Formats: sequence, structure tokens, C-alpha cells
Amino acid sequence: MICVVAAPNAFKECLPASAVARLMAEGARRVRADIEVREVPVADGGDGTLDALVSARGGEYVTERVLDPLGRPIPARFGLLDGGETAIIEMAEASGLRRVAREERNALAASTYGTGQLILAALARGVRRVVIGIGGSATTDAGCGMAQALGYRLLDDNGQELPPGGGALERLARIDSRGVDRRIEQVSFHVACDVWNPLLGENGAARVFAPQKGADAEEVERLERGLARFREVVQRDLQISVEDIPGGGAAGGLGAGLCAFLGAINMKGAELVLDEVRLNEALEGADLVLTGEGMLDVQSLAGKAPLAVARRAKVSGLVVVALVGIAGNNLSELYERGIDAVFPIAPRPVSQEESITMASTFLPTATEQVIRLFLAAGRLSPGELL
Amino acid sequence: MICVVAAPNAFKECLPASAVARLMAEGARRVRADIEVREVPVADGGDGTLDALVSARGGEYVTERVLDPLGRPIPARFGLLDGGETAIIEMAEASGLRRVAREERNALAASTYGTGQLILAALARGVRRVVIGIGGSATTDAGCGMAQALGYRLLDDNGQELPPGGGALERLARIDSRGVDRRIEQVSFHVACDVWNPLLGENGAARVFAPQKGADAEEVERLERGLARFREVVQRDLQISVEDIPGGGAAGGLGAGLCAFLGAINMKGAELVLDEVRLNEALEGADLVLTGEGMLDVQSLAGKAPLAVARRAKVSGLVVVALVGIAGNNLSELYERGIDAVFPIAPRPVSQEESITMASTFLPTATEQVIRLFLAAGRLSPGELL
Repeated sequence: MICVVAAPNAFKECLPASAVARLMAEGARRVRADIEVREVPVADGGDGTLDALVSARGGEYVTERVLDPLGRPIPARFGLLDGGETAIIEMAEASGLRRVAREERNALAASTYGTGQLILAALARGVRRVVIGIGGSATTDAGCGMAQALGYRLLDDNGQELPPGGGALERLARIDSRGVDRRIEQVSFHVACDVWNPLLGENGAARVFAPQKGADAEEVERLERGLARFREVVQRDLQISVEDIPGGGAAGGLGAGLCAFLGAINMKGAELVLDEVRLNEALEGADLVLTGEGMLDVQSLAGKAPLAVARRAKVSGLVVVALVGIAGNNLSELYERGIDAVFPIAPRPVSQEESITMASTFLPTATEQVIRLFLAAGRLSPGELL
Repeated sequence: MICVVAAPNAFKECLPASAVARLMAEGARRVRADIEVREVPVADGGDGTLDALVSARGGEYVTERVLDPLGRPIPARFGLLDGGETAIIEMAEASGLRRVAREERNALAASTYGTGQLILAALARGVRRVVIGIGGSATTDAGCGMAQALGYRLLDDNGQELPPGGGALERLARIDSRGVDRRIEQVSFHVACDVWNPLLGENGAARVFAPQKGADAEEVERLERGLARFREVVQRDLQISVEDIPGGGAAGGLGAGLCAFLGAINMKGAELVLDEVRLNEALEGADLVLTGEGMLDVQSLAGKAPLAVARRAKVSGLVVVALVGIAGNNLSELYERGIDAVFPIAPRPVSQEESITMASTFLPTATEQVIRLFLAAGRLSPGELL
């Protein structure tokens, strides 16, 4: 019988990648119970990275009480893999825009402090390696809140600790590293980054991303000045240049902050995730790869993980099919990037709301059709297929 | 390269079968220009039969001025195949519900006279055989209007000709055949019937179908009495028993009338159409059969032609895929009846209106995906497929 790898991205605002993979497996097994389905949910490094990695690797969740972007206590999860060797932290879990209601958004005050608390909690567990997915942030503080949680002191001209948030960074005068938690030196930090913007300038963290976090034009420029000040002080006090780091502008400058404060290495989010979920192993001996995403469109920022999946699957000559809520118009680009065919999940005209609420019904049925056609076309079970 | 047979039904109120087949061919050729696509549009015997047969057989259309169900002159078409040997007449073209606006519906007055005029026009062309698709009718006159057009006289107790429509049939006293066009004796009549209801009773033409033609409860019973009277008089004057003819109740009793007045043979509409479009020849040497319908659901009356296509394709072990506007919920029944997989045409959440207006864009793209997966799964062109 055939072996299918179910390696979908999350369907945003609808289903996590682990649920999508499970529903794909359910649909495949409806066709024949003896189909082997390897569930390997994937992610881009942003929202959903924690779910994908913990699910694909059979890790465990740890819940920690931390501060959200606006300083309110919340329970937030991180993951442990390999019996506690590796921690998976998703910055959005503590410091994401999803933690802040639209009317509460405050781009100047939002802090990554909670992400620092999750790192601390992981250190307390004795992990040797931390994978941090960054993306979906509410913050523009260059990871300074995170640094404060880890013992860095960010001081103004009067030697006073800066308050939380990127809005205060323009007053940054000095970084005091003396109180830093020394355990960070024993740990390697890998950052799964889903955008490659630099810290500063026209394509930087403030000007590109702060507006969607609630900043008006004046606040954007204040944040830009703060990030520029951060760059200067980091250069002087930590002897690290963050100006040209690709992805330094990701997650409101957390990409730069992780490099500066933790010596972290920025990696392409989707590729890092595919390594971590061990996609290559799952592809060995497989016949068909199912991927998917709520909306798959190479012209948008969406759809990077499925394309990364397709590239690896194509190395082995596997057939790759994407199941999607919404297919973009540029299908030929998807073909060129290794997606053999794209099928929508809705079996009939539906509203976007219904598509979302019915997705867990639609997905197995759509998967069933793909598997049925795949088997019939390959004549792998002539006569047996009802 | 592979050979694909595109044998769809019409997408009702959206696209005729010939257009669907053409759009499927367009989609298939987008994948590879050298794919052979045989366009064989099909039908059930009802609406769309004329389009499917003329298109599949390369016939020609003849337009004739006839009376619509309510006696208004309209242009109506019939088809000629085989250089004029065979005429294709679709009763709905002259006498269909589609000719009558909802607010004009008049189940008592609606007459098949125009269908008789089309038969006359075909006789005038010297055809040897007439295929009549019945279904989608506005009428409940047991084909009496048609008979009048061909020279039958339907008389009341006073020897007066009955007015048009089933509402007058309860006054039928006598059928006078002396003036009948004698050319009908030289011609064979085959009826493509899409329902198997008897003429009379609970499952008969009046009680089942007249309400949707605008009859209220009282009118339904008046029509039922008229059809019962028709049966009696036909038995006595034409020595033909129409009571037990399967499909006698089709098209408001036209099924019975065609047998009574023209000695026609009722056949299963979809099967007759598949014979006429020469589907079996098209299936020879094919790899994949695409069928489809606006809504495919074995629990409704819809979808009979695609299932007939599937049954024939399965005799040759071909893969059968249906492309649909709306997939029903009972997919496993479709599988059992030979449909390997069902795919919706809309690539994203859309309203029903948009699904209809965009169908000619959606169909080629959806076909493209099916062909791409079919080729990839069959590994018929490894490496070549972009």
C-alpha cells in the first residue's frame, strides 16, 4: 500500500497544522485503512511553530505564567523535545499580537518580557538548546523586554531602568550585562525567522510592521529612532553589529535582539522547522506528499512552508498536492516550485465563515478525493478501489 | 501521451454540456498541449439533450417558428445528424418550463403543440428517425397538443376540438385519427426519458410534477382526471394501453402520448444519449474520463448521466473523475457507482452566484489540477511535468 506524508501548514485562524495533518490522515484512511500516513505538521517560524514541532516530534508542553505584551499575567506554553534537551519557544505565545485585542494595541508599550520569561523557564529545566519561532509579534522593542527578563539592565542617562516597550528605547543610554543569567552561555539559540527585513530603515521593523501593531506615523518614527539608538548602544556596549543582520527586523527587532543578547543564529523559519520535524526522514519511502495552507499564494507572504515542503519532496521525485482554503491565481508559479496540483477543500459554494467552521469536515473529504485519484491513476489497487 | 474523454452533463442554469466539455479540454491542454481530449457532452434526455447530441455528433441546428406552451410564437431549434437521417428534438425547447416565467405558469393551459410543430418540421426535412428528449416540460397534456399539431383531432362530446392544455382533457370524448400526417408511419421515434413515473396515480404526471408547473391542489386533481380520461379514450379509439408504460408520466404524460400517437419507444434517457453520442467509441483507448454536473448527488434526480458515463467507463477499467459545482454528501454511493473521485470547481469560498458566473474560469483550472495529479500519480511523464 502507499505511504502518504501529511505535511501541512496551519490554516490560519482556523486549524493548527497538527489538526490539519490529523484530518488529512483521517481522509486518507477512509480510502483504505492500510494506507500509511506520516503526520508531519510544519510551520514558517511564526504562529503555529510550537504546535507543529511539539506535535511532529511527540514533545511535551510546559505552561508558565508570564507577562503578555502589555504586562498582564497570562499562562503561556513552551515545548520540550528529546526528553528535555531542546525547548521550543514561540514568541507569539507570550508576546504575540494575538494576545492583544485590536482596541488595546499599544506599539510603544508592548514588550517581549514574557518571551524572556519563557526562555528563563526553559533554562530552569536545563535545556541545552532553544529554538525560538519569531513572527506574529505585538512588539517593536528589539527584544529588550526579553533581555530584561534575562537579567540585562537597560538604563537611561540617569541610570534608571527603562520602562517596557520600544517607545522608551530612544532614551537608552547604556546596557549593563553584569546581572545576566549565566546559563545562557551553555545553551545554543536557533531562531526560526519568517521575514528577512533588516532592523532599520524603509524595510525595517518599525516602518514596515509597527503600523499593524497600532502605531501611527509619529509613533513609527519614534520607534525607528529607538531602534537606531538600540543599534548604537549594542554596538558600543556589547560589541555586536546588528544593523545588517538579515531578519534583524523580524518580530519588532527581536531578530536583532536575540543575536545581540543571546548570540542566537537566525535561520529561515520554514527550513529550520522542516529540519526539526525531520521531514526528510518522513519522506523516505513515501509516495505522495500532502501539504496545504489556509491560503496558498506565492505572491503573498503566505505559503512559505508548503513550498519548502514541496522543494524537499521534489528532490525525491515525490508527488506533491496542496489542499487549501483559498487557492491563489498564480498557480503556475506553484507548479514551478514543486506543487503538482492544488485542490480547494470546500465541496460547494460556501462563505468564508462556513469554510472556516466546516474545515474539519471538508478536509478529510477533500483528502479522500486526492488519495482516490492518486491510487486510481497509479493503478495501485486495480479493482479493489470502491 | 494520455487520452482524456470529457463527457460532462450540463451545469444547470450555468453552462451547456458542450461548453463544459470544451472548458475541460482547455484545462487539460494547459497541462500539456499534446493531451488528446475527446469532447463528448452528455445529457439525461431532459434539458440539454439537444446541445449534447448536436455537439457530440457535429450535427446542425434548424430553427423553426413554433408556439410556446402558452401559444405564443417563438423560434425553437431542433438538430439534424447524419446528413439529415436523424432529427433530435428536445421537448423543452418548444414546450419547456424554461419558456414560461414563474408568474405566467399555467398548468391547465400549457400545451405540447410546439413540440408537434418541431416534429412536423423534421418530417418535412425527410428524416427517417426522430430522437425526442423529454423532460423539463411546462405541460400536463399527455402530448395531446403535439398530436393536434400532427393532425389528430381531439373532440369533446359536441364534436368540438378541445382547447390547448391538460385542463381540457377531462372533456375528451373521442380521438379522430383520419387527418394524421401519414409520414409518421415511415419514421421511427425514440424517446429519451429521464423519469420513470407512470401516467396516473400517486406517482403520476399530475400529482408528482404538476405542482412545480404552477398547479394548485384542485388543478392537480383536474389534470389527473384529464389524464385518466385520456387513457380511456386512447384505449378505446387507438387500441393502445398507456396505463403501465414506464415513463408514461414523463413530461406531463408526453411519454404516454408519444407511445399512443406515434408508436414511439421509451428508452432510458441517459443510455440513449450515451449511445447517440457514441460514448463507447470515445472510451476506446482512453486513460481518464472526466464527467461532471452542476450538482452531483445520487439521492436527488440529478446526476444520472455522469453515473451512466461512469458505468460504461468502468467496464473498460478507466479512471473516472467528476468535476462539480456542488458535491453531495453521499460520496460513497458515487464511488460504488464508478466515480473514482469528485472535485469542486471553485478554488475558494464563493457564493452560488459567483460559482455560476465564474464557472467558465473555474472549470479549466479545476480540470488542470485533476490532469496534473493524474499524470503525476501515473508517473506518465516523470520530470517533464512543470
